[in-house]
Parts: sequence; C-alpha cells; structure tokens
Amino acid sequence: MKHIHIIGIGTGNPEHVTIQAINAMNAADVVFLPVKGTGKEELAEIRREICERYITRPGSRVCEFAVPQRQTADRTYTQSVDVWHGEVARIYRELISGLPENGGGAFLVWGDPSLYDSTIRIIERVRQETGLDFDYSVIPGITSIQALAASHKIPVNLVGKPIEITTGRKLARDGLLTDSTIVMLDGEQAFAKIDDPDAEIFWGAYLGTKDEIVRSGRLGDIATEIQALRAEARQRQGWIMDIYLLRKGRDFEE
Amino acid sequence: MKHIHIIGIGTGNPEHVTIQAINAMNAADVVFLPVKGTGKEELAEIRREICERYITRPGSRVCEFAVPQRQTADRTYTQSVDVWHGEVARIYRELISGLPENGGGAFLVWGDPSLYDSTIRIIERVRQETGLDFDYSVIPGITSIQALAASHKIPVNLVGKPIEITTGRKLARDGLLTDSTIVMLDGEQAFAKIDDPDAEIFWGAYLGTKDEIVRSGRLGDIATEIQALRAEARQRQGWIMDIYLLRKGRDFEE
Repeated sequence: MKHIHIIGIGTGNPEHVTIQAINAMNAADVVFLPVKGTGKEELAEIRREICERYITRPGSRVCEFAVPQRQTADRTYTQSVDVWHGEVARIYRELISGLPENGGGAFLVWGDPSLYDSTIRIIERVRQETGLDFDYSVIPGITSIQALAASHKIPVNLVGKPIEITTGRKLARDGLLTDSTIVMLDGEQAFAKIDDPDAEIFWGAYLGTKDEIVRSGRLGDIATEIQALRAEARQRQGWIMDIYLLRKGRDFEE
Repeated sequence: MKHIHIIGIGTGNPEHVTIQAINAMNAADVVFLPVKGTGKEELAEIRREICERYITRPGSRVCEFAVPQRQTADRTYTQSVDVWHGEVARIYRELISGLPENGGGAFLVWGDPSLYDSTIRIIERVRQETGLDFDYSVIPGITSIQALAASHKIPVNLVGKPIEITTGRKLARDGLLTDSTIVMLDGEQAFAKIDDPDAEIFWGAYLGTKDEIVRSGRLGDIATEIQALRAEARQRQGWIMDIYLLRKGRDFEE
C-alpha cells in the first residue's frame, strides 16, 4: 500500500526540523512541496533548503505543486474553506496517484500538522471521497507558538493557569477571555482594539527566519508601534506571518 | 559570560529532538540531567539515551542532579509551587556556579520549555535573586499535545475555532467550556465527571515511548475503559504521564 507522511517542519528555521521528520522525508520516494504564489517565494525557498539539507536518499524526488488561493467572494468563511479543501484534495489525489506502487510520499507542513493546518483533513477527504488505497502517518513539528515563546524566553501559561489559542477574528468578536491568549491568523490586528490596562503583549513576526522581529510590553504602550512595524514589514517583504500572546495577571496570584 | 541553554527534547521519542536542540547540546560544556526519584527511572533513561545518541562534542560532560519533590502539606497549590521553585533555584545556582568561566550549560526539558514547565521561571529567579552573571536561550521542543494529535492523526482545532489548554484541576471545577479542550496534568481523571453526550475524547499515555497507549471515542462510551486502562498502566509502570483532547462539534458547523 502507498504511504503518505504528513511532516511538520517548524516555522522557518531549518534547524527546527526533528530527527523523526528527517527520517520520514528520507523514507519517501517523492517529497511534495507546495508553492503558494507570488509574495511567498521565501517560504518555498525555506522548504527547498530543508529538502537540500536533509534529504540524502538516493533517487528521491522533490515535486513542487501550486496551491490554489481560497476564494472568499459570496461565501461564508467555512464555505470558502470547504470549497478550497475540495480543490486541494483533487491536487493531492493526482500527486498520490502518481506515486509508484507501494511507494511513499511526503507533504511538508509549516509548523505542526495539528494546529490551524488542514493537510490531515484534506488527506482524509481524499481517502474517503476517492477510495484511493493508501495510509498515512503524522510527524509533529515545532509551532510558531513555541518559536514565539522561545524568542521571548517566556512560559506561555501562568503557573497552573489555562491558555487559549484563538484567531484574530474571534478575539475581535469576543475580547480577551483568558489569562494567556495566543492569537494566530490575525489579519485585522485585533490586539489594537483590546482596551485592557493590565494586558501585556508578546508579539513576533517571521519567527525562526533571518527576518524575525519580536516586541513585548504593556499592550496600551506598544500596540501602535507594533501596528506600524507590522505594516512596514509587510510592505517590505510582500507578506507577513505573525502571532502574539496577550497576558494578564502574574504567576502565584491565586 | 556563562550561557545556559534551556532545551526542549520532546516527549519520550528520542527522534523528537530537533537539529537546533542537538546543536545546543553540543554547544554546552555540561549537560544537566534531572533525576526525579524512584518510579521515574524510565524518564531519566530516555534523557540519557538522548545524550548518548546526539552529544558528539569531545570532552563534554553529563551531570545528573536530584530534583526535590514538591511538598503540599499545609500549603496552597501556588505556595507549594513557589517554595519548590526556591529549592530548585538553589540547586540550579550551584550547577551554574560550577561551570567553567564563559562556559555553557544545558538543561534538558521534557516537551517544550514554554508549556507547563518552570525551568525558564526558575532560571530567571536564579538571575534575579543571586546576581550570578549568565545569560540564557530557549530551544523549543515537541510537546505532548503535538505527539497526541500525531498519534491520533487529527488536527487539534476545528476549522477556524479556538483551543483551550487547561489542567485537570480546572476542568473539574469549570467543566467543558470550548469546542477543543486539551487537558494536561490531570491526576484526578476529571474527564470521567464530564457529562456531555456530544463530547469525544482522544486520550494518550506515555506518548512517544515504546509503552504508548492511545484511545479515542465518544466520552460517555469509553471514559470507564480509559480509567481502568490508566489505573492498570500506572500500577504496572509505577508512574504515568497522560493527556487528552475533549472535542465537541464538527468542522464546518457555523
């Protein structure tokens, strides 16, 4: 039976890659590399560098494929995601069909396959909708949450306290609910609308890469600076990936 | 100046270790290995195996040290943690004092240093309370959350939805609040008290090790089986580390 490895590769630093990921890459006949179009060339470059650095298996191939853009016009968020998954599933199906009999393929996933990534969902969809005969395994990778905390040299949680991981969309709607709130996928800079005198922010962009920027401080003091930095960096690079932790309270407060 | 590396080593599978972690271990003159007393010998064994497998620097030393137990009698939870941190800080101070001038030391941390681990806090405390002159860096590692999701081959979040990471103590007190709730540090099996016909559980123990056990299903159907499995495994091994995801709802429900 064909086997697919869904491999987390960390967040931009090729040294985030685990030994398990390297072994899985080398167990595959073909490594599939997504290319997400203009402005994101640097991400494809990092994936290529990881392949060049770590793949040592003779005769293994790297196969690049274009990822379609999610179309949002006249669709709710979940509809747009669902339709987009369907399009990506058709591409995955072709890639998997093209593998040699009993061969192995690998999909490299930014960060970790379990966190705000749909490779697992889409691979399941291919299995269920096409009857294509293959199995798959998942290899964990370093997430941007961990890269953020490492760069700031902080624990994410307060002692014994919970953590919420959420999206910019939801933070904008519900406000700050937990002592430690990690916000991902925030295109609208929802942090700037939080009016809480106790909140601190730990922000990072391009984490793990040579362009990494981090800032921290009282949210009220530095929200404007971060917005300006973010806009400028996005203009310069043509794209941005950022993440932040909002924190209230202190360790050992009951 | 002396330099301390706080290194996440993953959750039991020596292949969880990243290239960055291997390089940091090899940048240190001394690697400090915590030994947590009887019953947890296997954890010390895994740390030793990681050192043997990956440390190649000539002349580097591995130094084992005993970690005191947290005393809970007549103390609140946070008091007991605070006092315990103070005791560990005195040990860290001695270890760091013993490093050669401008030398490097490494602390290996189970999982990731940012998640329910206090090495960063205690190292900061040593710096602030003793005036000892050193700096430190943090290297992220694979957490048991990621190992759990990889073994179950599932994303942790539903599409576009948030995640809560919490403790057994808090789940028991507050109940199930979020679509996807990860529970760590649950000695009291709080999941068994959740009465929610929609909840699914994805449970794992000894993740990443040869003794890994995973179970998933509707919480109401398998809570009793997991309690029995857990008690039996704990009896057999002398210790247990487990974690689970409770999930309600489905992808693409608005």
